[in-house]
Amino acid sequence: MIIDCHGHYTTAPAAHASWREAQQSAFRTGERPPAYPRISDAEIQESIEGSQLRLMAERGVDLTIFSPRASGMGHDFGDETTSIAWSQVCNDLIARVVALYPDKFIGVCQLPQSPGVPISHAVAELRRCVAELGFVGLNLNPDPSGGYWTSPPLTDPSWFPLYEVMVELDVPAMVHVSAVTNPNFHATGSHYLNADTTAFMQLLQADLFTTFPGLRFVIPHGGGAVPYHWGRFRGLADMLGRPPLEESVLGNVFFDTCVYHQPGIDLLFEVVDIDNLLFGSEMVGAVRGIDARTGHYFDDTRRYVDALRLPEADRAKVYEANARRVYPRLDAALRARPRRVLP
Amino acid sequence: MIIDCHGHYTTAPAAHASWREAQQSAFRTGERPPAYPRISDAEIQESIEGSQLRLMAERGVDLTIFSPRASGMGHDFGDETTSIAWSQVCNDLIARVVALYPDKFIGVCQLPQSPGVPISHAVAELRRCVAELGFVGLNLNPDPSGGYWTSPPLTDPSWFPLYEVMVELDVPAMVHVSAVTNPNFHATGSHYLNADTTAFMQLLQADLFTTFPGLRFVIPHGGGAVPYHWGRFRGLADMLGRPPLEESVLGNVFFDTCVYHQPGIDLLFEVVDIDNLLFGSEMVGAVRGIDARTGHYFDDTRRYVDALRLPEADRAKVYEANARRVYPRLDAALRARPRRVLP
Repeated sequence: MIIDCHGHYTTAPAAHASWREAQQSAFRTGERPPAYPRISDAEIQESIEGSQLRLMAERGVDLTIFSPRASGMGHDFGDETTSIAWSQVCNDLIARVVALYPDKFIGVCQLPQSPGVPISHAVAELRRCVAELGFVGLNLNPDPSGGYWTSPPLTDPSWFPLYEVMVELDVPAMVHVSAVTNPNFHATGSHYLNADTTAFMQLLQADLFTTFPGLRFVIPHGGGAVPYHWGRFRGLADMLGRPPLEESVLGNVFFDTCVYHQPGIDLLFEVVDIDNLLFGSEMVGAVRGIDARTGHYFDDTRRYVDALRLPEADRAKVYEANARRVYPRLDAALRARPRRVLP
Repeated sequence: MIIDCHGHYTTAPAAHASWREAQQSAFRTGERPPAYPRISDAEIQESIEGSQLRLMAERGVDLTIFSPRASGMGHDFGDETTSIAWSQVCNDLIARVVALYPDKFIGVCQLPQSPGVPISHAVAELRRCVAELGFVGLNLNPDPSGGYWTSPPLTDPSWFPLYEVMVELDVPAMVHVSAVTNPNFHATGSHYLNADTTAFMQLLQADLFTTFPGLRFVIPHGGGAVPYHWGRFRGLADMLGRPPLEESVLGNVFFDTCVYHQPGIDLLFEVVDIDNLLFGSEMVGAVRGIDARTGHYFDDTRRYVDALRLPEADRAKVYEANARRVYPRLDAALRARPRRVLP
């Protein structure tokens, strides 16, 4: 089967985004936000069948690890209460998608992060999503300030209360920032990629995985700038007296395949071990158009991966086995599924 | 000939760095900094002959476009006066290197930037370096805050007073940040690469080169994450209703070859037009070690470029002609040189 480890619900019903706007207005004026609207199954079906599900079918993707729209997380806005309420309704909406299409989606949550608020306050929502909604992972924002980078690095002990629970629950985090308010950055054009590169370098510099051997991170967007500069990072590890990347980082850090052209995918698979690569597309997402040079969608990453003509064992790893290994709760869920009887 | 467009004086005599420390101490205590020390020609020769010049000779590099140590610019420290004084002595030291080895080096200046200070205040130093020291370009820091990104994007009109002078003097800027105080970032491991990606996306989003057709930027470190994500940037241009990259950006933006492994260089030359690539090594710089896999220095970028076995015309562009075109004052200086008579 083919598992896409990186899909966001970017086409959620309009009522969902409208409620967010109402919540933000209420925060600004100091009022209580309105009740979250009733969204019907039909609205959810309509929002997803013509976009995400259609594209998955067209591209032969069997299952998407699905999370709320990343740019919509908006951790920089409001306060802790705002973020908790917004995260809950976003995660609940993902759970409804999963309930409607249990063969096609499995959930990953956003966390109710807020600048300056201890990460331990986000743990309850993670526990709820895993225990009650059956989610298999989380998106962790290393910069809830929205482009001003005011939080400590991911290797700082202030993050450890979350990591302890991630290890306990055996769930990985995709390191994923949200939209920016800093005008220097474009969310999908620079901030996302910068955060990927930044996180990898933080992990290279410290001994986080000695403290938490069971902790796992997925760095999206093909690892930002990292694989392209693989020699630089290997050289920096050497220069800084750090162990080789294989020893210090690559037992716990994985990259997705959200790189939207063939030469980029070629490089990714040339320099990064196959065991560290998870198929992903980031759709429906950052780049929605068709590449005039190829006639295909930029984000149809399966075409690029298929074009590699990997040996079958490697192909199985990147499309399925690595995702099952990195997300053990996904693996358990798949094993628990009733086997379909073919007609 | 082979021109390296990206070299920093990272091995300057100790007295130079000691003066910086004294200047910083004086700023903190509100005293006057001491007089800049006398540095002899012999000290400069000793600082450079065993490192930069030796490596240039070993690698067959004829000329380096040479600038002060980028991580040492430290625009975040102190105030405008501090930055002016420090920039002047740094640039003067580069001029002395050039005077000692006029066949081997040509100068590029750092600017006396300071967070919140109008860029017009940096123009006098640029004029001095070009008119009096014979420099051919500048390093422009898009984030003088040192990792907090508090300045407006490079496409904001507040930068235009500098661009007007750059066009008047016909000098390009390498977009190059300095060291960081933000603990999220490692200078050479993430901040530099992030700034490269950030600058490119800023330029993609706006019409800066319609306003300044003669403005030229070199984005170092192989363009940060940009070539690896070339499809993403092409797709974003399309999605944002921007012209193709070739029309909007690539007439004015160039990348160096500071990518420290063969697959990265292969990708760079596969996706970026040869007219937009300038040979560079960033040495003696970010990564000084030897790659145990190859037995060669990580930053010996000539090996990777040579291994491409480019057609002779392309090779001449990346090693020489593009640098002469992007830095017209370099070209003029080379043309004015007395031709050597072979023995």
